[in-house]
Amino acid sequence: MAKLINSINNSLIKLLYQLKEKSKQRKKTNTFLIEGKRELSLAIKGGYKIETLLFFPDLFSESEAKSMSSYDIEIIEISKEVFQKLAHRDTTEGVIAVVKVKNHKLDDLKLKSKNPLILVAEAPEKPGNIGALLRTADAANVDAVIIANPKSDLYNPNIIRSSVGCVFTTEIAIASSEDAILFLQKYNFNIYAAILQESESYHTQDYTLPTAIVVGTEATGLRQEWRDAATKNISIPMQGDIDSMNVSVAAGILIFEAKRQRDFK
Amino acid sequence: MAKLINSINNSLIKLLYQLKEKSKQRKKTNTFLIEGKRELSLAIKGGYKIETLLFFPDLFSESEAKSMSSYDIEIIEISKEVFQKLAHRDTTEGVIAVVKVKNHKLDDLKLKSKNPLILVAEAPEKPGNIGALLRTADAANVDAVIIANPKSDLYNPNIIRSSVGCVFTTEIAIASSEDAILFLQKYNFNIYAAILQESESYHTQDYTLPTAIVVGTEATGLRQEWRDAATKNISIPMQGDIDSMNVSVAAGILIFEAKRQRDFK
Repeated sequence: MAKLINSINNSLIKLLYQLKEKSKQRKKTNTFLIEGKRELSLAIKGGYKIETLLFFPDLFSESEAKSMSSYDIEIIEISKEVFQKLAHRDTTEGVIAVVKVKNHKLDDLKLKSKNPLILVAEAPEKPGNIGALLRTADAANVDAVIIANPKSDLYNPNIIRSSVGCVFTTEIAIASSEDAILFLQKYNFNIYAAILQESESYHTQDYTLPTAIVVGTEATGLRQEWRDAATKNISIPMQGDIDSMNVSVAAGILIFEAKRQRDFK
Repeated sequence: MAKLINSINNSLIKLLYQLKEKSKQRKKTNTFLIEGKRELSLAIKGGYKIETLLFFPDLFSESEAKSMSSYDIEIIEISKEVFQKLAHRDTTEGVIAVVKVKNHKLDDLKLKSKNPLILVAEAPEKPGNIGALLRTADAANVDAVIIANPKSDLYNPNIIRSSVGCVFTTEIAIASSEDAILFLQKYNFNIYAAILQESESYHTQDYTLPTAIVVGTEATGLRQEWRDAATKNISIPMQGDIDSMNVSVAAGILIFEAKRQRDFK
């Protein structure tokens, strides 16, 4: 029988609640919470290490929980009240896991192809935008996403949710803009910085060599160091009344133009 | 001197609060609220009729208010308390307007070009997605957006906000899918329906003739009638682990491929 916790005052549950709510607690313990079957299998697929699995038996059976515990996982049964305390979503599937964070170092990046395509997002802030960027990166099967000067914790529940789990399956590095530029230069990437000023229309450029496409925030754009490091500044022609576009839409347009030129190979 | 209202219990203020909160009230009165200078000027540019202008003098001067009232606009000074009651946003500029809705009939659509490009969104639901779709439509300067079988009121404050005002400057029709299809067929549009099943990769198609690009919801995709009416079903190759993409990102990729083929003219 799995251990049972049925009080929200249990000290472990209190800690896990902190893990859900507080980035600081995630940083301190190097763990975070995952909720839902699909996210959990994507995390396992992505090589994340599950430490503890909590299940609410009305929604998720103990045998299901055990079938996911091929290695050293602690399994704990929880009551409805405890489950509701820890669950982030309204509709969910009775399973929550405590998972070890990854390091996301630049040097650990595994680039799948010989002619890689990388998406760089500088200082993205809104979880919904980061989630959408990661979904685009997954769909395009880019070699990696580099998040430069991050302003949000990658394991924020809203990022996990809005990425529909792509946060686990995408190769992600987190670094300063400075280090990211050095990394891209070291491996001879062409750097295309999405910038409105003094830029060429994106569709006139060649993305068939090793390519990094760099997008900034909607509010402030990219920092000067990216402009300086860019092989070329590129922009999407804006022909309307308003001079801005959602950053995840812009990234999608640029990444898929690169994919088109590469004939989706 | 402008009339002054300083009580949130004033009957007009109560009605305007309903207008902010309730789609039903917007439908009943055929009016809605706009907040902020930028949105207001975009609405005026888009030909919307302002009925009443309310200003909080600490943030927006009476002379500014008067300078916007070239025609028959009632101007009302409001207190801080009233302003906070009516304001939807945290940071704002002390001005709120009661504005007449437009009809958005298919037959009233003014297509700018001889070789038009139209974005059709079927049953979009999330205000954030609709806002992003409208921003993309604005940036691409499409001839029109048709919203088929809408599930949200276009003048929902969250749509206005997330569209950063593009809801006012984009030519928009609202119609049933059936009527939208008849309209597109009548004017000999090629209809490209974004659908995963039995579809061609979007980048192999020609969008240089009169083109409608049709996207559905992320959850259920497009209804059968669009599949039947389509010149071609198109899809964005999905090469990752997860078989979905944010609808506004997908629309951006498709619309800008059409723009690219048209050389952004």
